Amino acid sequence: MSIEKISQYVSQIKQLDANAMARARERLVALAKPPGSLGRLEDIAALLSGMSGEMFYDSSKRCVIVMSSDNGVYEEGVASTPQSVTYSQTVNFAKGLTGVAVIAKQFNADLIIVDVGVNADIDHPLVINRKIRKSTWNIAKGPAMTRDEAAEAVLAGIETAAVAAMNGYKMIGVGEMGIANTTTSAAVLCALAGVSAEEAAGKGAGLGEDAYKHKIDVIKTALDVNKPDSRDPIDVLAKVGGFDIAAMAGVYIGGALKGIPMVIDGFISMVAALVAARLAPVSKDYMLASHSSYEQGFAHAANALEMRTYLDLEMRLGEGSGCPIMFAVVDAACAVMRNMATFEEAEINDDYVEELTRGDMFTV
Amino acid sequence: MSIEKISQYVSQIKQLDANAMARARERLVALAKPPGSLGRLEDIAALLSGMSGEMFYDSSKRCVIVMSSDNGVYEEGVASTPQSVTYSQTVNFAKGLTGVAVIAKQFNADLIIVDVGVNADIDHPLVINRKIRKSTWNIAKGPAMTRDEAAEAVLAGIETAAVAAMNGYKMIGVGEMGIANTTTSAAVLCALAGVSAEEAAGKGAGLGEDAYKHKIDVIKTALDVNKPDSRDPIDVLAKVGGFDIAAMAGVYIGGALKGIPMVIDGFISMVAALVAARLAPVSKDYMLASHSSYEQGFAHAANALEMRTYLDLEMRLGEGSGCPIMFAVVDAACAVMRNMATFEEAEINDDYVEELTRGDMFTV
Repeated sequence: MSIEKISQYVSQIKQLDANAMARARERLVALAKPPGSLGRLEDIAALLSGMSGEMFYDSSKRCVIVMSSDNGVYEEGVASTPQSVTYSQTVNFAKGLTGVAVIAKQFNADLIIVDVGVNADIDHPLVINRKIRKSTWNIAKGPAMTRDEAAEAVLAGIETAAVAAMNGYKMIGVGEMGIANTTTSAAVLCALAGVSAEEAAGKGAGLGEDAYKHKIDVIKTALDVNKPDSRDPIDVLAKVGGFDIAAMAGVYIGGALKGIPMVIDGFISMVAALVAARLAPVSKDYMLASHSSYEQGFAHAANALEMRTYLDLEMRLGEGSGCPIMFAVVDAACAVMRNMATFEEAEINDDYVEELTRGDMFTV
Repeated sequence: MSIEKISQYVSQIKQLDANAMARARERLVALAKPPGSLGRLEDIAALLSGMSGEMFYDSSKRCVIVMSSDNGVYEEGVASTPQSVTYSQTVNFAKGLTGVAVIAKQFNADLIIVDVGVNADIDHPLVINRKIRKSTWNIAKGPAMTRDEAAEAVLAGIETAAVAAMNGYKMIGVGEMGIANTTTSAAVLCALAGVSAEEAAGKGAGLGEDAYKHKIDVIKTALDVNKPDSRDPIDVLAKVGGFDIAAMAGVYIGGALKGIPMVIDGFISMVAALVAARLAPVSKDYMLASHSSYEQGFAHAANALEMRTYLDLEMRLGEGSGCPIMFAVVDAACAVMRNMATFEEAEINDDYVEELTRGDMFTV
């Protein structure tokens, strides 16, 4: 039932509007600068037109959606942080105390915090309750969740993003909080992209060497025990994923459905983007990779998705904390499109630009 | 005389404040996140403390200083753009029409436009007159300027930055406008860093293949004719540089003198930073490289200066247009330092964080 609903949503995602992109490219070439000299800012501006059908995109209302959930594999000792931190940080997001909260505020972005499976009751007015249940099961011993639960978590993400879009958000970053979710993300990456556990696993929040080796073993065990089907992303989510990753994948799909640029954060966010792209290939066209995470598996996930980042900050905090900085890059692209004059427009009001265009600028 | 003044300024640049940096690092480690997980944002925050002596830096008042000048080597046909564009764009900066004007406005940065050698009379209230003279001479035939003029141009830059700092600017981007200045910058890079003309020369605003080969020949000729002394940056500026590059080098020195972070833009800005670092090695500690310019020589200049960028945008517009985007990255670093709570601070007000710290977070 939930899976059919996902398929329906996926089928409604539109291809980028080629005509709108062509019109945007025409204007970008006509702006008073050497053609192409604003590089990837021009690419972003054209993409935004392709997503929205609009020439002048307004990215000023934006948010980061944070999916919080616990992961049963925590009991294998794969995390350097107690499980209770998922709960505490989820509430701290709402209090503006965490990294993503501070960085989002700096860039005028709102936080939308969603509990999809935190292992505690949360009763907080700023935390949206879409809890599937309290924590997944331990993937080292069996599946993380049922197939229906996986679909339900994806749907929670789709609907959260769609509601945000209906509330006027024009750009969405995708973040998470879930102790042990670099382990589940690594397992999902291995299953979907044929990456080895050694490549996919990183040291997360701060594992020592022995704990790191153990983490790799746990990932291998999870893949052996569950044998996820690489061609079936819902199966992969259900067997070795988490409610957080599933819901984040849904967020990408929901944003694409609404024609909105979706900003990828770090490792877990990139793996969720890969899941979304496997479920809904067109959704990839709506994604922008923000920064190159320092977590080891990130580069492999980005390669699998053929995504190139814009920022090199060696961040590895997660939470969606890199997304708001990328919002600033998108703002620059929007400002170029909206506020730079074409040679022709400038000529009307400006003798100097008239002189400049008469000189056959940039035509050697 | 001017050269002695430069030496005096250079000798007054302070080493980064090691105590302030250590205190900043202490706080950064204590913030409620895995230590080091904000990567280069933490490095920037510590650097700002080292530059200013302050724990909490406020980067909100910032500007881009644009040095405009013409270059005699234009007559060799090395540019794809008429020389009059230096003049027109200089005035257009003041009118808010150019790339850097639009991007600076988006990031609440002011523009400070300085005429150090435009080949026309400029009488505009927003263009500061520090003209050395109208255009340099043709470096393919002899020196660009006298040694005194080179020193005078550097001084103009130092004083412009120092005045900006005294007016309250806390972060300065370094931009330029000068048709043919990728040719002079390439020649300076060759002279200072032993890079070949083929490596240093790029296609600028849009040269064709034949014109590009000609540009390389002109650079080689300029180096042959002038034989700049690689150990003497003022000699290099005078023989194969430009008033724009010299003044920009001065801006870096003036900013360092005032303890302010200085943001490098593209190729010409990076070459000027290299000149500044050769004149005043300590000034390098105050520089932040913003983006990896698409202009070919950029990577060689960045290597010579051992600078690593933060943004990958394939921009090649110049003008200082990449600096304001880097301002946003610095803003993020300042926000983390100013607005994130340490575990200890959070504990006082927050039961959840108390629970979180009791759990021996991040200590496996």
